[in-house]
Amino acid sequence: MRVGLDMGGTKTDAVVVDPAGAIVGRVRLATGWGGDQIVRTAVAAVRAVATDAGIGLDDIVSVGIGIPGQIEPGTGRVTHAVNLGVDELDLADAVAPALGIPVRVENDVKAAALGAYVLRGSAHGFHPRHGSMAYLNLGTGVAAGIVVDGELWRGARGTAGEVGHISVDPNGPECRCGQHGCIEALSGGGAVAARWGRPGALPVADVFAAAAAGDPHARELRAGVARGVAAAVRVLVLTADVELVVLGGGLTGLGAALTGDVAAELAASAEASPFMRSLQLEDRVEVLPAGSPAAALGAALIGAARDPEPEEVLAHG
Amino acid sequence: MRVGLDMGGTKTDAVVVDPAGAIVGRVRLATGWGGDQIVRTAVAAVRAVATDAGIGLDDIVSVGIGIPGQIEPGTGRVTHAVNLGVDELDLADAVAPALGIPVRVENDVKAAALGAYVLRGSAHGFHPRHGSMAYLNLGTGVAAGIVVDGELWRGARGTAGEVGHISVDPNGPECRCGQHGCIEALSGGGAVAARWGRPGALPVADVFAAAAAGDPHARELRAGVARGVAAAVRVLVLTADVELVVLGGGLTGLGAALTGDVAAELAASAEASPFMRSLQLEDRVEVLPAGSPAAALGAALIGAARDPEPEEVLAHG
Repeated sequence: MRVGLDMGGTKTDAVVVDPAGAIVGRVRLATGWGGDQIVRTAVAAVRAVATDAGIGLDDIVSVGIGIPGQIEPGTGRVTHAVNLGVDELDLADAVAPALGIPVRVENDVKAAALGAYVLRGSAHGFHPRHGSMAYLNLGTGVAAGIVVDGELWRGARGTAGEVGHISVDPNGPECRCGQHGCIEALSGGGAVAARWGRPGALPVADVFAAAAAGDPHARELRAGVARGVAAAVRVLVLTADVELVVLGGGLTGLGAALTGDVAAELAASAEASPFMRSLQLEDRVEVLPAGSPAAALGAALIGAARDPEPEEVLAHG
Repeated sequence: MRVGLDMGGTKTDAVVVDPAGAIVGRVRLATGWGGDQIVRTAVAAVRAVATDAGIGLDDIVSVGIGIPGQIEPGTGRVTHAVNLGVDELDLADAVAPALGIPVRVENDVKAAALGAYVLRGSAHGFHPRHGSMAYLNLGTGVAAGIVVDGELWRGARGTAGEVGHISVDPNGPECRCGQHGCIEALSGGGAVAARWGRPGALPVADVFAAAAAGDPHARELRAGVARGVAAAVRVLVLTADVELVVLGGGLTGLGAALTGDVAAELAASAEASPFMRSLQLEDRVEVLPAGSPAAALGAALIGAARDPEPEEVLAHG
């Protein structure tokens, strides 16, 4: 049995995956804040999901943890997990001894990409080892994970899928990265909330509601969100030519208001351009269902991988 | 021995590659116009390069042809090779019987990408099977070929690397594809020549010269060329995270005038953005030397591939 954790800013999703790949246990816990509490949450989540599945820790061969931060290649070290109050943490080294189980750590978007490939790829008839998909995470930031033939495409230096910082408008809003008109500056929940500038628990939802009510500033922000998401879809298909782009992350909670806007953007470029029309982009985008265990499932699969990223060790002399 | 042909609008470059991968013969011929003459040129080029290498046709196990057009996956059929006067041609079926040798056909940018990976990757210490590179062709149009771990990345539907039609400026010039601000609309030799609108054998060189002399329209066009090329480099690294982007194609004949402009664009985004700076893009771009046999070499390697694109046959059910 393999356990996967998806540690988000508010909750941690844990699954047990059996040798055939089926999810046979699942629990959700509140995520603690800061390094010590993150470690404590991870250990508690593994114990709780084992109980849920009716197994012991001895039955677990590996634990994989997806977490929103940068992971140093080939290590279990997390940096810049700002939503979790973690600046730097050797998560694998802290969790593994407490459980007596090998632990691997991966960026949560990459984990979700792998899980979504398994869940959605099978729905599309992908062979487990032949097919390609990008998972485009629309959260505070915007980033994608790319899966090709059943494996995460990590790239040469770990920046594959960082489409959020591609500029698609030199006159667009300044991005927190310092450039202008980045996809993330248009579509990232953090950037939209900052430009909206009004308090609220769900600022992007507020923007969409205000836009629907006719507020000009909100309409401009809302149009930018769809423009950025559509641009990301085009970039992923025109560069990596993935068969499918699966949207996920907090902004997909906006539902049809978001997906309808994105479809309209893609339809407009298909209308303008026979070449874009030939790509059939509208048919190649779908949304990960709310509550999908994709990220935790992907983390479980990463935890069970035998070899720790051989490409990154051998890639360049 | 394997033969590779790079059939361009004016000349055809032919090489003989020995089993160790070394080029042991090379000739260049004028390329004929239209389907019949293209077939005749291909057959003549194979015979001529065999003579140059001192071998007979019996010594050639395969012929690969790189050609500027669309290739129907899994076939030797070329469409839309407008620079060669070919609307539709089953090139492999026409050439193979005349030579008695198996023939494979590939888009010339993809062939050049594979050849550049071999030639430049070895210079960068890439392992033949571990490393990633994009070849960005700057010619009449703009397109890239991506090579990962020694193999062409073809993508799900054959559009991998079509970065020329990613829009990076909603207020940019209209592209022949129908969108606005495409990378190709900024940097494609055809688009620049059309916007310049003055006769001349080398319109982009004329634009660069006029820009250097202070002509405002030429300066704007020239700035757009560098902006589009830099955008393509960023897209390729942020999406596919290739280690290296090799520039080739007719526009690279502009030499330091072009590469200096592109380096300045990349330096400006690195200056604005610590994230972009961390990517070290300026160090990851280089130019294919003039007269490089990359495309013909890549064609030879494609011709010798044993299995005709198994991914495309099996990919999606």
